[in-house]
Amino acid sequence: MPGMHENQDRSISINWMPDRASGVPLYSQIVSYFSEKISRGEWMSGQNIPSQRRLSELFGVNRSTIVEAMDELAAMGLIEGCFGRGTRIANDSWASLIQVKSPNWKSYITAGGFRSNIPMVQIINRLEFEEGITRMSTGELSPDLVQAELTQKALDNLSEHKLFMNYPDPLGMPDLRRAVQAHLSRSGINVPISCILIVSGALQALQLISNGIVQSRSTVYVEEPSYLRSLNIFQSVGATLTSVPMDKNGIQPWMIHNQPREGTYSLLYTIPTYQNPTGVVMPESRRLEVLKYCSEQHMPIIEDDVFCDLWLDAPPPPPMKAADESGGVVYIGSLSKCFSPGLRLGWLVGPEPVVDRLADIKMQTDYGVSVLTQQVVAELLNSGIYYQGLNSVREQLRRRRDLMLSLLEEFFGDLAEWNRPAGGFFVWVRLKNQVSAERVFNLALKEKLLVPPGNIYDPLYTSHMRLTYGYLSMEEMSRSMRRLAEIVRSLR
Amino acid sequence: MPGMHENQDRSISINWMPDRASGVPLYSQIVSYFSEKISRGEWMSGQNIPSQRRLSELFGVNRSTIVEAMDELAAMGLIEGCFGRGTRIANDSWASLIQVKSPNWKSYITAGGFRSNIPMVQIINRLEFEEGITRMSTGELSPDLVQAELTQKALDNLSEHKLFMNYPDPLGMPDLRRAVQAHLSRSGINVPISCILIVSGALQALQLISNGIVQSRSTVYVEEPSYLRSLNIFQSVGATLTSVPMDKNGIQPWMIHNQPREGTYSLLYTIPTYQNPTGVVMPESRRLEVLKYCSEQHMPIIEDDVFCDLWLDAPPPPPMKAADESGGVVYIGSLSKCFSPGLRLGWLVGPEPVVDRLADIKMQTDYGVSVLTQQVVAELLNSGIYYQGLNSVREQLRRRRDLMLSLLEEFFGDLAEWNRPAGGFFVWVRLKNQVSAERVFNLALKEKLLVPPGNIYDPLYTSHMRLTYGYLSMEEMSRSMRRLAEIVRSLR
Repeated sequence: MPGMHENQDRSISINWMPDRASGVPLYSQIVSYFSEKISRGEWMSGQNIPSQRRLSELFGVNRSTIVEAMDELAAMGLIEGCFGRGTRIANDSWASLIQVKSPNWKSYITAGGFRSNIPMVQIINRLEFEEGITRMSTGELSPDLVQAELTQKALDNLSEHKLFMNYPDPLGMPDLRRAVQAHLSRSGINVPISCILIVSGALQALQLISNGIVQSRSTVYVEEPSYLRSLNIFQSVGATLTSVPMDKNGIQPWMIHNQPREGTYSLLYTIPTYQNPTGVVMPESRRLEVLKYCSEQHMPIIEDDVFCDLWLDAPPPPPMKAADESGGVVYIGSLSKCFSPGLRLGWLVGPEPVVDRLADIKMQTDYGVSVLTQQVVAELLNSGIYYQGLNSVREQLRRRRDLMLSLLEEFFGDLAEWNRPAGGFFVWVRLKNQVSAERVFNLALKEKLLVPPGNIYDPLYTSHMRLTYGYLSMEEMSRSMRRLAEIVRSLR
Repeated sequence: MPGMHENQDRSISINWMPDRASGVPLYSQIVSYFSEKISRGEWMSGQNIPSQRRLSELFGVNRSTIVEAMDELAAMGLIEGCFGRGTRIANDSWASLIQVKSPNWKSYITAGGFRSNIPMVQIINRLEFEEGITRMSTGELSPDLVQAELTQKALDNLSEHKLFMNYPDPLGMPDLRRAVQAHLSRSGINVPISCILIVSGALQALQLISNGIVQSRSTVYVEEPSYLRSLNIFQSVGATLTSVPMDKNGIQPWMIHNQPREGTYSLLYTIPTYQNPTGVVMPESRRLEVLKYCSEQHMPIIEDDVFCDLWLDAPPPPPMKAADESGGVVYIGSLSKCFSPGLRLGWLVGPEPVVDRLADIKMQTDYGVSVLTQQVVAELLNSGIYYQGLNSVREQLRRRRDLMLSLLEEFFGDLAEWNRPAGGFFVWVRLKNQVSAERVFNLALKEKLLVPPGNIYDPLYTSHMRLTYGYLSMEEMSRSMRRLAEIVRSLR
C-alpha cells in the first residue's frame, strides 16, 4: 500500500541509546540527541516520531523520562503534534515542497565539512532568541548599554565627508587601520598598519586562523576552562583542543605534559584579561612568563583581548603583544563586547606574513568588512566618541557588578563560591555539595531562566555556572538570582 | 663560520623548473612561481635570491628570460636589491624580528587547509591596487558610478529611527529580510522570510555553500568558461569543478558525460543572466529546460544572479528560482555589482533546512552582517532609493557599453570577435589567429594595462580576454583600447 510505504519513509530512524554512565541526565541526553539530528537536517520537518511507548523501549528508559524529554522538545518548538494522532518534527512551509522531487538536501547538508555547533550550545543559542527568556549568562552588553546613540553621532559626523563605497583594501581601509594603530598604542602595542587586519569581529579572526594556520592534527592549548570549548572552530578543521591548568594568575603552559605529535604544530590560545568564563586576570609577571615559555618552545600565542577595555577597578596590565619581541603573538581585539556587537568589527594584529595570509583568506571569504562600518568605526575612534562611550559603559557595569556580588552574598552565601571580577562580565560560580549545574540548567529553563552549565567550557566543570552582570537589567538580575538560589537549594 | 651559515639559511631554496610544454611563456611561469612562494609565506622577506646566472642554470632558461622575470617581480614590489650586492625578497618591518626566535610561522602558514588564491589571480588582485594601473577587466562599477551619495541619503533617513546595534538574528534582521522579500517578488520569486539569509555578499554565500553542503569529492558543474574557475572556493574543500558546454543560450547540463562517482554529490553552478565572463543571457525556455533536467537528476542548482539588475536593453527573463517548484534552487543576489561593492551585502534564498544550516555556519563564522549595513540597505530598498540609483547606473552603463562596442569596431574589427552584451559588464573577446592572451597580458602589463587572459576562466580559452566597460572612464577606455589593439596587432 502506497500509504503505508509513505508513512514508513517519513518516520525518523533511531539507532542510538542514552549513556547511563555519563552522569548527564537521561532526559537531557535525549533532548540533545533530537536537537542535534534536527539541527543537522538529518531529520526533516514533518517526519513522524515513534510513540512514547516505542521510544521508551528504543532508549531503554522509563516512560516518564520520555514525557519529560518530549515536553522539553515541544517547548523548544522542535516537535509538534496532537497526542493520539502522533508527534512529528515541527512543520514549516518548506516541508510540503521537499516531498515532491527536490534534491536530497539532507545528504548535502550532512556532507559539508563544517561541523554544526555543539548540540548544547545550539540549544542555548536558540533559547536566547525565545520570547520571555531571562539570559543570566549572556556575555554581552544589554540592549540599553549598547552605544546606539553614540553610533548615531558618529554617523552624523560622517555626513560631512564623502563616503567611500568601493571594495576596501584587503587589510581594511588605511584610515581605519591608522585609527586602530593609535588605539592599540594606548596599551603599549606599537605596530605598522601593515600588521593590522580589519575583521568582522573576534570570531572571524579565530575562523581565519583556523583556516589559515592550523592544520588537521594540530593541538590548540586552551585554558581549563575556556570559552573556546563552546565553539567548534578549531575542531572543524580537525585540530584538537587540550586543556592547560590555570591558577589564580591564569594559564600555566609549563604544565603541558602531552607534547604534540611529531610533525604537527601547536598553538596556545589565551584570554589573559577577564578570562572567559573565569574572569581571571593574568598579572604582568605571568604574562611575561607565558611569553618567554612559548617563545622558547616556538609556540605561537593567540591573545584574545576583547574584554580589555571593560576594566572596572583599574586598567589591566599591558597585553602580551606589547612585550612580544619575537613576533610570536597574534593579537585579537573587537568593539563587540564594549561598544556594540552589531557593528561586527574587530582587528587582528600579527607578523606581516601571517596577516597577509589571513587577508588572502578573508578576501576569498567575503571581500572584507562593510566599508560603511569601517568608516563609522574610524570616526568613533578618531573623534573620541568611543572612549566617551566606554566611560559610560564602565560606570553602568560597575553598578551591575556590585549588585551581582551583593545578590550572590545574600542568596548564595551557603550555596556557592565565586570570584570578584575586576572587569569584563563574568562571575564563575562553583556550587557546593557537587550540585549538578546541568540539573540546575534544566530546572531553571522550566521557569525561563537560561543558565548554561559550566561543562560547556570544560567537561570537568559539572558544578559550575558562568553568571554575567552585563546583560540583565538590575531588576531582572535581582528577581532571577533569588529564584536561581531557590532552585539550587532544592537540589541539595 | 657563523656568517656563512646564516647566509645559507637565509637563501631561498629552489627545486622547480619551468615547463616548456605548457605554452605559458617561461618568464611568466617564473614570475608565477616566485609570487606563489612569497604569497604563501614559504619565502620570507629578507631572504636572498641566487644570482641571475645561477637562476638561469637552475631553471634551464636564457639569462634574458631571468632578467625579464626579475624586472617584473621588482615592478610588483616582491623583490628588491642593488645589483652586485644581491637581490632579496622585499623587505618589511617584520623581517628583522623573524630572525630572532619567533615560531616557525612558515610551517603554520602552509599548514592551514585553506588554499591560497590561484597564483595568476593573486597577481592580478595585487596589480589592481597598484598605482597608475588601467583595469580593463575589472567587473565592478567605477568609483564614480558607485552610489555613495544615495547611500548618504539613506543614512540621513536612518537618523529618524533608533538604531539597532545588538547582535542580529542568525538569518539577518527581519526588517531587512522583508525588504529583500519585496525586492525578490518583483522578479517573481515569492518566498517566506524564513527562506532568506542575509550574507556579506555573493562570495560569502558561495563560501557558506562550500563549507555547508559540498563534500570533498563532490563535483560542481560550471559553465565553460566560468568565473568560478578564477576562485578557489570549492577546490578548497576538495570538490572538483567540471565544465559543461554552453551554446548561445547558455549552459547545457544534458551534455554532462562523466557522471559523478558513486556515493558523491554534484551541484550545478550557473550565472543565467549576463554570464561571467561571456555575457550570455539564458532565454526563459532554456531556464525551464535546465530546471527540469536538474530536477529529474535530483541535482541542486546554485543560481548566481548578481548582475540581474544591470539590464541595459530590456529586463532579463525571470530567474529560475521563480519557477522552482521542487525547491532545488539556491538563489544568490547582492548589491555589490549594481549599487555599491563596499556595502558587502547580499542574500541567499533556499529551502529552510538549507538556509538554517548555512545560517548556523555563518553564526560560527562571523555572527552575521553588520547591523548598521543591514539597516542602511533596508532603508535603500524600502525608500526606493536603490531603484533610483539603478536607473542612473543603467543610463551610464548604456553609454559606456555603446562606446566599448564602437571602440571594438574601430580598433579590433580585423583582430577579434566579440558579443554585444545586453546587460552586466562583460564583453568576451576572441582574438583571431590564435594570438595568445597571456602574451597580450604580459605585454600590456608593461604599459600598465591590466587585461587578464581568458584561461583563468577555463584552460581552453587561451585566445580570449574579458573586457569590461563598467570600471573605466570613457576617456580611459578610448585610450587603453587603442593601445591594446596595437599590442594585439604586434603579436600577429
